[in-house]
Amino acid sequence: MERDQALAKLRDWSGNNAYSIGGYGPGWGDCVELNETPEAALSESEASSEVDLIKGVAAVLTSEQPVRHVALEHGPAAGSRIKVGPAVFGAGAVSVIAGPCSVESLDGLLALAHSLRESGATALRGGAFKPRTSPYSFQGLGLPGLEILATVRTETGMSVVTEVMDTRQVELVSEYADMLQIGSRNMMNYALLREAGAAGKPVLLKRGMSATLSEFLFAAEYLAHAGCSDIVLCERGLRHFDPTVRNLLDLAAIPALKQRTHLPVVVDPSHGTGDASLVPPMLAAAAAAGA
Amino acid sequence: MERDQALAKLRDWSGNNAYSIGGYGPGWGDCVELNETPEAALSESEASSEVDLIKGVAAVLTSEQPVRHVALEHGPAAGSRIKVGPAVFGAGAVSVIAGPCSVESLDGLLALAHSLRESGATALRGGAFKPRTSPYSFQGLGLPGLEILATVRTETGMSVVTEVMDTRQVELVSEYADMLQIGSRNMMNYALLREAGAAGKPVLLKRGMSATLSEFLFAAEYLAHAGCSDIVLCERGLRHFDPTVRNLLDLAAIPALKQRTHLPVVVDPSHGTGDASLVPPMLAAAAAAGA
Amino acid sequence: MERDQALAKLRDWSGNNAYSIGGYGPGWGDCVELNETPEAALSESEASSEVDLIKGVAAVLTSEQPVRHVALEHGPAAGSRIKVGPAVFGAGAVSVIAGPCSVESLDGLLALAHSLRESGATALRGGAFKPRTSPYSFQGLGLPGLEILATVRTETGMSVVTEVMDTRQVELVSEYADMLQIGSRNMMNYALLREAGAAGKPVLLKRGMSATLSEFLFAAEYLAHAGCSDIVLCERGLRHFDPTVRNLLDLAAIPALKQRTHLPVVVDPSHGTGDASLVPPMLAAAAAAGA
Amino acid sequence: MERDQALAKLRDWSGNNAYSIGGYGPGWGDCVELNETPEAALSESEASSEVDLIKGVAAVLTSEQPVRHVALEHGPAAGSRIKVGPAVFGAGAVSVIAGPCSVESLDGLLALAHSLRESGATALRGGAFKPRTSPYSFQGLGLPGLEILATVRTETGMSVVTEVMDTRQVELVSEYADMLQIGSRNMMNYALLREAGAAGKPVLLKRGMSATLSEFLFAAEYLAHAGCSDIVLCERGLRHFDPTVRNLLDLAAIPALKQRTHLPVVVDPSHGTGDASLVPPMLAAAAAAGA
Repeated sequence: MERDQALAKLRDWSGNNAYSIGGYGPGWGDCVELNETPEAALSESEASSEVDLIKGVAAVLTSEQPVRHVALEHGPAAGSRIKVGPAVFGAGAVSVIAGPCSVESLDGLLALAHSLRESGATALRGGAFKPRTSPYSFQGLGLPGLEILATVRTETGMSVVTEVMDTRQVELVSEYADMLQIGSRNMMNYALLREAGAAGKPVLLKRGMSATLSEFLFAAEYLAHAGCSDIVLCERGLRHFDPTVRNLLDLAAIPALKQRTHLPVVVDPSHGTGDASLVPPMLAAAAAAGA
Repeated sequence: MERDQALAKLRDWSGNNAYSIGGYGPGWGDCVELNETPEAALSESEASSEVDLIKGVAAVLTSEQPVRHVALEHGPAAGSRIKVGPAVFGAGAVSVIAGPCSVESLDGLLALAHSLRESGATALRGGAFKPRTSPYSFQGLGLPGLEILATVRTETGMSVVTEVMDTRQVELVSEYADMLQIGSRNMMNYALLREAGAAGKPVLLKRGMSATLSEFLFAAEYLAHAGCSDIVLCERGLRHFDPTVRNLLDLAAIPALKQRTHLPVVVDPSHGTGDASLVPPMLAAAAAAGA
Repeated sequence: MERDQALAKLRDWSGNNAYSIGGYGPGWGDCVELNETPEAALSESEASSEVDLIKGVAAVLTSEQPVRHVALEHGPAAGSRIKVGPAVFGAGAVSVIAGPCSVESLDGLLALAHSLRESGATALRGGAFKPRTSPYSFQGLGLPGLEILATVRTETGMSVVTEVMDTRQVELVSEYADMLQIGSRNMMNYALLREAGAAGKPVLLKRGMSATLSEFLFAAEYLAHAGCSDIVLCERGLRHFDPTVRNLLDLAAIPALKQRTHLPVVVDPSHGTGDASLVPPMLAAAAAAGA
Repeated sequence: MERDQALAKLRDWSGNNAYSIGGYGPGWGDCVELNETPEAALSESEASSEVDLIKGVAAVLTSEQPVRHVALEHGPAAGSRIKVGPAVFGAGAVSVIAGPCSVESLDGLLALAHSLRESGATALRGGAFKPRTSPYSFQGLGLPGLEILATVRTETGMSVVTEVMDTRQVELVSEYADMLQIGSRNMMNYALLREAGAAGKPVLLKRGMSATLSEFLFAAEYLAHAGCSDIVLCERGLRHFDPTVRNLLDLAAIPALKQRTHLPVVVDPSHGTGDASLVPPMLAAAAAAGA
């Protein structure tokens, strides 16, 4: 009802101001697309100020500011602070997420987690479902892996971060994990982003291996649009032509993201370089850059 | 039972030949990982010949040949020929898939499809579910879009190719489509590859925007491993630093893929360049390169 | 004198039209930079039409058309045709340049050249001065290599194309070569471009390994600005993240360049792929794309 | 004489050990290439230890260690410390090089230099010869620019770093500069590297815009091989697909280079990002990474 009234007003406004309605209705969700015509007397920014005042319009997005929830101005001045059990991200807080690539056994993981906890790590990452380049590689333990993670959480007090790869797994993984991880390969898996964003859990979103910062922020906006307010962005290195390192860690992404979003930004220097000896200097550099 | 016997034999063989068993069991599917130890007297290729003869071993993969179903030697000498209604791909056949980015209305699509059909296109591509960078862009009509596609198929006789983005959509989309499309953004969405591969439909697999040829073939192998034998690979351009074109079409991928796989390879020069004036020369070049 | 008069008129014009003079004089060569001010009433294209009429102004460049000599509109409608002895490039002509990476001995090169000539090649390429990644690799024979090339030209009638790497070598190499080659590593060596452009010889300009098309055309403009009218552009592959091939051949560059310049475009599929088996399909593709 | 004796011994050794001599003589400088044959009984590392003992052999390079002068083991344990007037680089020293892109006037540069000096900068960078993408852009003042730089040095005590672009300019620029800069576009201009390396001046070598670390070190080795022992490496960002930033600063290059070479590594965050607001965090990150 209110939606119909808002739409009617938008139609009037667009008719009066020589803007055209590019799209709305099926496939557009709650959005309406307004396009400037050659006859329009108002600039995009003038038009957006006017439209913003129309009752029922929740937000106006522009080419300059195409995201809403994750935009810098929609968060606290110091940036968002996100708490996941003992781990805290953003607004100056520094937490370390550590752990093995995949969960393989309770005893092994428990021993590792105790030692990580002592070194100061507050979140434990480990894959129960693993995205593997080959279908013939180890794909993760699945449910038993989740159970191991839950046990280790109980024993160590660490928060559990684990990857979800399928919309159908989101509910199950959310029962065990404190934070859902969306991996690089799925950064543009929009169905998964929507489902994970609606799960009621914090999400660690890893940047795609050749994603622009704009695409990265849009992926976060998918999560936020679906209801998630606790999103942590993770830079993990880009595709690279130099075989010296596995990926090319983009540390300028940290301050560049912080100019655009209130979300915390963390760095994964292990995947980001593929070289253990480069991890400590890259962690120090990431911290210095604002992560 | 047979599996247990084969595993027992593999254990014996590995014990006798100083190979170790790296992994099997939960998370490994039907696979067993064998690793050369420093004491091993057999090379990888000698070992693979021997293991291949063990009863119950379906295939042996090596670092040189890490895929099975899609490997060149597992297809006909002239390459696989894949028929999707009037469209035929591979083994010298050239079919054109054409259509709009997204399905918007029956009348519009029908008119377009008739004219494409007259120009020689045999397959119609159109998105009912659209992967869009922004959650606020048009996301596709969904089910009504699929119904429109089905009507156009009936009217024109063209095969319908449409994208699937979510494991939960595979069944529905398969009811309407003649061929499922996996988009670039989902080339490494392994859960989706498994589900789409098991749907009993031909699949058009688009290369990820910074995927290596090896990763592309592994993605196809996921489809094949799940049961799909009718896979068409589609090169659609890579991420590029030069804003002159939208993407960098990799035509050398065509002959390079054909040296490694029996699957048909097609090219999408529209996404591959983002410039209509470059489409005809790139189509000609792709054909000359063997697509 | 005429220059001073033209400059005086430009000053008047810019004063009258609220454009400012950004630069001229030392370091600007014969150029004058005009910048629109917020008060300017004329658009860039209107201003450029007016300035073009001022006596003494040889050409007006704009952000839309920043090059002059190599721009499409400054050449014949069918594109420039460049003749280097029996080899002809452009305007539909197809010539093959072939030869070894470097010149090593007269007998070896002569035998090879005869067989290349019989296969239809009309130009012989071979390095007497070689740009090598390591200072400890073979750097080319230098002058004796040039003498070998000259002898082979006499014996076979083929045109000789050879690389020049140092401004101080241009004169010497020009005595022996029919066409100077500027290698990828030196595409942005502007001192060399100026010297080679003034040598009175045709130039084969190879694209830098991560050069945009705009940068490539500017490099050609350096040659033309220095006096060279016989320039052939050569696409030779870009830096790539996929170790499957050595470089990523950009065949869309061929039609994209032909939309911008009248210069002939050729392709080097050997460096472009680093894989002999990919050369024939890439040559066919390049020809189909318009090279 | 000694060379002939060493060569004779190398021939003997290679004959006795089933290694072949791949190249020496014209074009090989003082190098001899030894290649393992299928019959060779010694591994590359065993062979290299033996060859190293032959009288007259100055150094043995291998596929593992293909550079000599710049290799980590050829410098002091703490890394080389390079002093250029008041500026000191390497071995823990941190110096700031600052200045305008190009030198335009004495008064302007002097005022700027005084303020940079007060902020702690010890070296002044400014271009008298400028590599510009377009031949119609300001190319630098040339000699008068060098004279301005020299005056500013006298007035401020800062060291002068300025670019050299042409082998024929090296002598002139060396009369005025305290440190020669080789720009990104000329990192693979080997003729220039040789000439600049022999000039008796410290050299600031900027990484090419898509150079691998291996290529970067080889370029430094060209300088060192020509006689230069005071080389500072400068990471300045790589070609990037994301228009958000101008270049992609590769900070992992700092520790990765320091594992391979004793040379100091500095960072140019201005070119490296093209965004003034990103310079301070990137400087902090570079320092943390070890620059």
